[in-house]
Amino acid sequence: MTHTVVSSHKKTVVIGFDRPFCVIGERINPTGRKKLAAEMAAGDFSTVQSDALAQVEAGAHMLDVNAGIPLADEPAILAETVKLVQSLVDAPLSIDSSIVEALERGLEVYQGKALVNSVTGEEERLEVVLPLVKKYDAAVVAISNDETGISEDPDVRFEVARKIVERAADYGISHQDVVVDPLVMPVGALGQAGKSVFRLIRRLREELGVNTTCGASNISFGLPNRHALNGSFLAMASAAGMTSAILNPLHAEEMASLLAADVLNGVDPNCGRWLRKFREPAPEGSEQGRRERRRRRGAAAVA
Amino acid sequence: MTHTVVSSHKKTVVIGFDRPFCVIGERINPTGRKKLAAEMAAGDFSTVQSDALAQVEAGAHMLDVNAGIPLADEPAILAETVKLVQSLVDAPLSIDSSIVEALERGLEVYQGKALVNSVTGEEERLEVVLPLVKKYDAAVVAISNDETGISEDPDVRFEVARKIVERAADYGISHQDVVVDPLVMPVGALGQAGKSVFRLIRRLREELGVNTTCGASNISFGLPNRHALNGSFLAMASAAGMTSAILNPLHAEEMASLLAADVLNGVDPNCGRWLRKFREPAPEGSEQGRRERRRRRGAAAVA
Repeated sequence: MTHTVVSSHKKTVVIGFDRPFCVIGERINPTGRKKLAAEMAAGDFSTVQSDALAQVEAGAHMLDVNAGIPLADEPAILAETVKLVQSLVDAPLSIDSSIVEALERGLEVYQGKALVNSVTGEEERLEVVLPLVKKYDAAVVAISNDETGISEDPDVRFEVARKIVERAADYGISHQDVVVDPLVMPVGALGQAGKSVFRLIRRLREELGVNTTCGASNISFGLPNRHALNGSFLAMASAAGMTSAILNPLHAEEMASLLAADVLNGVDPNCGRWLRKFREPAPEGSEQGRRERRRRRGAAAVA
Repeated sequence: MTHTVVSSHKKTVVIGFDRPFCVIGERINPTGRKKLAAEMAAGDFSTVQSDALAQVEAGAHMLDVNAGIPLADEPAILAETVKLVQSLVDAPLSIDSSIVEALERGLEVYQGKALVNSVTGEEERLEVVLPLVKKYDAAVVAISNDETGISEDPDVRFEVARKIVERAADYGISHQDVVVDPLVMPVGALGQAGKSVFRLIRRLREELGVNTTCGASNISFGLPNRHALNGSFLAMASAAGMTSAILNPLHAEEMASLLAADVLNGVDPNCGRWLRKFREPAPEGSEQGRRERRRRRGAAAVA
């Protein structure tokens, strides 16, 4: 069984086919968020702080941390953000940058086993990112494009993923520590994008035995009612073998779909998380209400 | 490619892996609806009438028609209901009874190629229902239980389905006209019910090449927030190869999930149905608004 084990100083998260779907909160990212970018560049981390807490409260298992701000000292800001977020929440982090020095500075200060986001199949990226992943004993997101760009052919993307997994092995990194992003295309532009990525996810699971992740909202780009489409996409992708995604956990529809998918994939024992989230409280004074309050007190006592 | 072709006197519906998911409206069924049962027994079909129209308006492709009322003349009432519903809507019908005489009376008056709901793997049912299906050139729902009851083991249910498909062939009925109900168990009672039925649906598609259907709401029996769970179930089941379901099309969450599933399975060309359902109308006076109104007028002119 494939298990990608990531951790903070206080908490371990296991990504795997037999585990609940791993939600990686995407909010701590200044790309496309001008106000956040300006704040972070000026050393104001108040939004980072509230985003970190809100995402964990909403059910994120991990948080992605990105500090990609044009003309700013990204390595220093990323390291500071990583330290701050680790002081606030227990969730393990995905350290996200296209700048290798920023990844390294983030990894230096990180406590635990991080997820590095990301490496591609491009030779020059493989040669610099994989040694870092090995040096810091991290896991890594492998994006299935290479020097030739992003292929629309899922079989080509599969071969890029295979190449990254094999190259990682050359550096002593297990396939269990490579989480492949099969690259989700917008279905509004490419009508077979859903169907073909489900097949690709299944191949990645069955033939390479790797965990997978994606930027979930890409699928609905340009279409109306995106949350409903994203929610169904995530449920269907999880049935095909997708084990994590980077998304906004404050969106209730996507999160409900993922909780439902956990129930239906048989990885929410006794529907416990579903019941805790959606069960109506029993009326005050009823025998059932007394039993439930006793159970909650008991659970709190052992927590 | 497997195609189950059903029709009314005015409309043909094709169920298949390359087609939109087929929604069979479940509302015209007095089981558990005391008021409807009393009305139908007394010859009052006003609720049947409004249920027929409302379900088609909500997007049902077919309607199930059941007249199972204790102590009533079910064959006569079913025949009358079939005639009435066919006078109101173009959608092909699923003629639903456990009484063979009622099925036959319904088939006698039906105009088009009906879906007979249902036969099981029980010898005495196979021997009386399959000849009827052949005689009236209908399609049939095959429920995967037999004399020994409903097995919790999906491999046993697969073998029952295989037996029905083979027996149908003996009567000259193609596997394309057998729509298997793999029997969805409540996931609240059987934690692996979702996962195991997805696997069973996939086997039915790949090994028997048959279309499938189910009573979709069974999956969420006993759990809270059933519509969300049903919606994710339907999307995931469709990704595994489920091609139709009997459900209440007035439930918006389930219907949105199925429209999303059609987009993601690549069977909603250019996302046309999704856009028609969810696109916000462009503001009056805008160039986009003028274009859209022109397009709608054009579409209406050719419809």
